[in-house]
Amino acid sequence: MGRTADYSNERCSVAATLELVGDPWTMLIVREAFLGVTRFEQWQSKLGVARNVLAARLKSLTEHGLLSREVYSTRPMRQEYVLTAKGRDLLPILTAMLAFGDKHIYGPGHEPHHYTHLDCGQPFQAQSVCGCCGKPFKMRDLRRETDPDAATVGEVLEKA
Amino acid sequence: MGRTADYSNERCSVAATLELVGDPWTMLIVREAFLGVTRFEQWQSKLGVARNVLAARLKSLTEHGLLSREVYSTRPMRQEYVLTAKGRDLLPILTAMLAFGDKHIYGPGHEPHHYTHLDCGQPFQAQSVCGCCGKPFKMRDLRRETDPDAATVGEVLEKA
Repeated sequence: MGRTADYSNERCSVAATLELVGDPWTMLIVREAFLGVTRFEQWQSKLGVARNVLAARLKSLTEHGLLSREVYSTRPMRQEYVLTAKGRDLLPILTAMLAFGDKHIYGPGHEPHHYTHLDCGQPFQAQSVCGCCGKPFKMRDLRRETDPDAATVGEVLEKA
Repeated sequence: MGRTADYSNERCSVAATLELVGDPWTMLIVREAFLGVTRFEQWQSKLGVARNVLAARLKSLTEHGLLSREVYSTRPMRQEYVLTAKGRDLLPILTAMLAFGDKHIYGPGHEPHHYTHLDCGQPFQAQSVCGCCGKPFKMRDLRRETDPDAATVGEVLEKA
């Protein structure tokens, strides 16, 4: 299973992020990493994904610095994969998808998982706000300016 | 270009959301809808996506209630596609991807687009917080409980 779309000519941070995590299965592999999975066989049995696809995804996530590979046994050689600080910054993408699916697909009262925010002790649902003033926002509240000299996704990933 | 992964056996709101928007090109089609694109030819020329793929994605987004189709000319018959309230709730997913790509792929000072939050007048960057207490969170701040009777993604999408 190769790349399924080529966004390399885009000049866009959304498209760039999709180049890293937009492949089939990747976000579910990342989800399991957040839930504590670190080993190939654990991902394989939890997701039922084909072994060659899983191997390709772990390689890509490692090459892009989202997972780091650590040896935990040398005889036999065994490695595990742990989210890096960069990888852990994928959490808001996951929780935004979670909030959408809970609200619009499963619906209130039918969510497959319930989360509690240990800090405040209340049921947890992610909310997206302006990082500066802390208020929720709509698209119409945002003004967008384009940098005409910005690199393409292909260029910026080649440099990395 | 058909489905590239089958998450129908998952019991998970993230997987359910990916069934709606995880196909190649879909999130860029949604991005353009937020930027004002409503017509087939506009998407086609902005994204350079194959016409059959674009048609399939618009059909799927409409069937899932993320876009609504409206006739704007009857001679010749012409339709446009507008984000529904449900579709507009995809914005936090897009802005989370945007924040990740700005920070980790393009990097500060190299972002392809600059956003201003008109409410507060400051540069805009989305932040994900607890919807209850308003604080940022890490995975370790969340306790997760599974509903063993939750429907699979396949079941919940069939009912919809």
